[in-house]
Amino acid sequence: MSNQLTLERIDGGISAPAGFRVAGVNCGIKKKTGALDLALIVADAPAAAAGVFTQNKAQAAPVLVSREHLARSGGRAAAIVVNSGCANACTGPEGLAVTRSSADFVASVVGCAPEQVLVASTGVIGVQLDLDRVRRGTGAAAAALSRAAHLDAAKAIMTTDIAPKEAAVRVVTPAGTFHVGGMAKGAGMIEPNMATMLGFITTDAEVEPAVLQRALKDAVDVTFNAITIDGDTSTNDTVFLLASGASGVAIGEASYGALLAGLRDVCGVLARAIVRGGEGATKLVSITVTGAASVADATKAAKVVANSLLVKTAIHGGDPNWGRLVAAAGRAGVAFDVERAAVLVGSIVLFKDGVPFDDRAPLAADYLSGTDIEITIDLGTGGSHQATVWTCDLSAEYVTINAEYRT
Amino acid sequence: MSNQLTLERIDGGISAPAGFRVAGVNCGIKKKTGALDLALIVADAPAAAAGVFTQNKAQAAPVLVSREHLARSGGRAAAIVVNSGCANACTGPEGLAVTRSSADFVASVVGCAPEQVLVASTGVIGVQLDLDRVRRGTGAAAAALSRAAHLDAAKAIMTTDIAPKEAAVRVVTPAGTFHVGGMAKGAGMIEPNMATMLGFITTDAEVEPAVLQRALKDAVDVTFNAITIDGDTSTNDTVFLLASGASGVAIGEASYGALLAGLRDVCGVLARAIVRGGEGATKLVSITVTGAASVADATKAAKVVANSLLVKTAIHGGDPNWGRLVAAAGRAGVAFDVERAAVLVGSIVLFKDGVPFDDRAPLAADYLSGTDIEITIDLGTGGSHQATVWTCDLSAEYVTINAEYRT
Repeated sequence: MSNQLTLERIDGGISAPAGFRVAGVNCGIKKKTGALDLALIVADAPAAAAGVFTQNKAQAAPVLVSREHLARSGGRAAAIVVNSGCANACTGPEGLAVTRSSADFVASVVGCAPEQVLVASTGVIGVQLDLDRVRRGTGAAAAALSRAAHLDAAKAIMTTDIAPKEAAVRVVTPAGTFHVGGMAKGAGMIEPNMATMLGFITTDAEVEPAVLQRALKDAVDVTFNAITIDGDTSTNDTVFLLASGASGVAIGEASYGALLAGLRDVCGVLARAIVRGGEGATKLVSITVTGAASVADATKAAKVVANSLLVKTAIHGGDPNWGRLVAAAGRAGVAFDVERAAVLVGSIVLFKDGVPFDDRAPLAADYLSGTDIEITIDLGTGGSHQATVWTCDLSAEYVTINAEYRT
Repeated sequence: MSNQLTLERIDGGISAPAGFRVAGVNCGIKKKTGALDLALIVADAPAAAAGVFTQNKAQAAPVLVSREHLARSGGRAAAIVVNSGCANACTGPEGLAVTRSSADFVASVVGCAPEQVLVASTGVIGVQLDLDRVRRGTGAAAAALSRAAHLDAAKAIMTTDIAPKEAAVRVVTPAGTFHVGGMAKGAGMIEPNMATMLGFITTDAEVEPAVLQRALKDAVDVTFNAITIDGDTSTNDTVFLLASGASGVAIGEASYGALLAGLRDVCGVLARAIVRGGEGATKLVSITVTGAASVADATKAAKVVANSLLVKTAIHGGDPNWGRLVAAAGRAGVAFDVERAAVLVGSIVLFKDGVPFDDRAPLAADYLSGTDIEITIDLGTGGSHQATVWTCDLSAEYVTINAEYRT
């Protein structure tokens, strides 16, 4: 069936799939007057739910509570509440109590069990979240819920993001048509602290929670988990996926590929939008590593290359510096044979089988002056696996943004 | 005995210990007219020798040949030849042949076996080293050898280093007095490619090769291997240690601590000088991680913190951003308990047991305006081990330097 599916990009963001209403409101958590800072996503009926979270050992209160709720509800959720402006991280027992109370309040407004509410926060860390503001915002958002308000919701989860990030796709299969939609924020660092990446995805396919969790993980591994701005991970990183079933298309083994294709498309668009919006970024760079013994090895090498300051600054300067690419791949901790390795910038071979082709450097420099850059490195060990990671270049502006004192 | 030793810093650099003569000459490998670009270190008689090398899987020809020579000679060397301006890396069989011929030529000039010659190179990668120039330089250097020429030698191994880096110490023990001296270069990136860190250490203590290798590794682990400018490692990184025995002080188990103390002092001075001279660096930052389950865990966490762009930019901007320190420690892959962790900037506690002390931020910002910064992070897991790593801040100038196109 996966050979017969068609993906069409559509408008509508997170509420493009049937069965969800959303809102984005201002409740005073952000300092800026009138800024949208609370988003509410409500399923018409409790939906199948899945979540993936930061691997950071310092996990914020909303991460801890959402994990617990997913487990207690058996993978069902009726609402997601998200605030920006305060991460509710490193806030101890008081922060945890505020998150629990927020979920309780949302449950009472929406009319579901508290464990059917998922919570996410992004913003300043080490500062307590104001529960009264969350309650006020939740009330206002509940009154404003609609399928049309997806852009407000996408704006309400932004911190230093330059633009809201939305994506949606129609998945047409022989078994029927369903939709996947989503919104995301990050990874701009926020005063005063860190990159938080949040993603919220919906679908109107009908999916069992266990299958939904597997599909989310499979999609996130090659999209949100394949991007890196600067190697830093947050205390709050979260991606949620809700499935309403409103399309009437039930996902089984035969149609799992169609669900995954839709998720990968939406998550991929959002993930690349995050990289493009990275602080100080001027280029979206895809790093593909081939010839690896495993996908894990390929990913590991691609991430080391993508996080190399020397690689990122060279790309920023339009310098086709294959030596830095070889050196980064060589220190990645995976098998690498420099005598049989290859480096391509776009489709231009700059180094292969131990031989540099520096006469092609001007051609490659011209290619690097673009804004969408593809780099390919073959590890030279004859392996058959590959992986792609997306990153951005490193500019002096990144340093300026992140070196500013928090006042 | 180690309790009764005295260390006195002295002048004389790499030839401060008796039994070594050195030279630094120009032979035209560097483009700049007259720039010193070849150093020769000769032992009056074959010395005990030890070496540690880059862990990068892409290893340059001089690294491969020097490893082989140390093994074949049983840890004895009579000479080290070093050139700057060309790394002889990614140069295939031809590059390997040039390195071998260089060693053969040095052996014929010095009057030793070829395997008693060690070789190091730093500079542009992917370009062949000119053997004729190396021969010419070796001849000139052999004629200029003296104990007084240590500064010339230190200058001849520089690439984009701002200043030559030398250190020497007199080690006074009840069993006698011996000396340790050294010079280093790096980690400024060089046109067109990468950071290479080279260190050359001598001593006039009498040490068996196996003990010398162990002492070098022990000293390098907490000095050269505990610094990081940007996480990138080179194809050429090398530290050599030669022991002439000319002081008549034989190192046994009882005096091993004295040898190690001398080596740690000299290697530590050189390593910190490298960080201070990092491209665009304005501050030397020591990151100490305490409360770890093992030294390896403490080192791992300290390196992740030291390489975090968010941490390095915050320090550059004088921002006492404890949240970035917590987040970096939390993603280091070692045990971490945010509820019992602590963050100190200098001696100022900014976060402890889940409680931030943001009223102390102005005091900490004042401390961060200095040039020598100490950061301490306790992992909060009650472990008894710790480690210190040195790094520098990240400035917009670093990006500018490394984004320049190689023309």
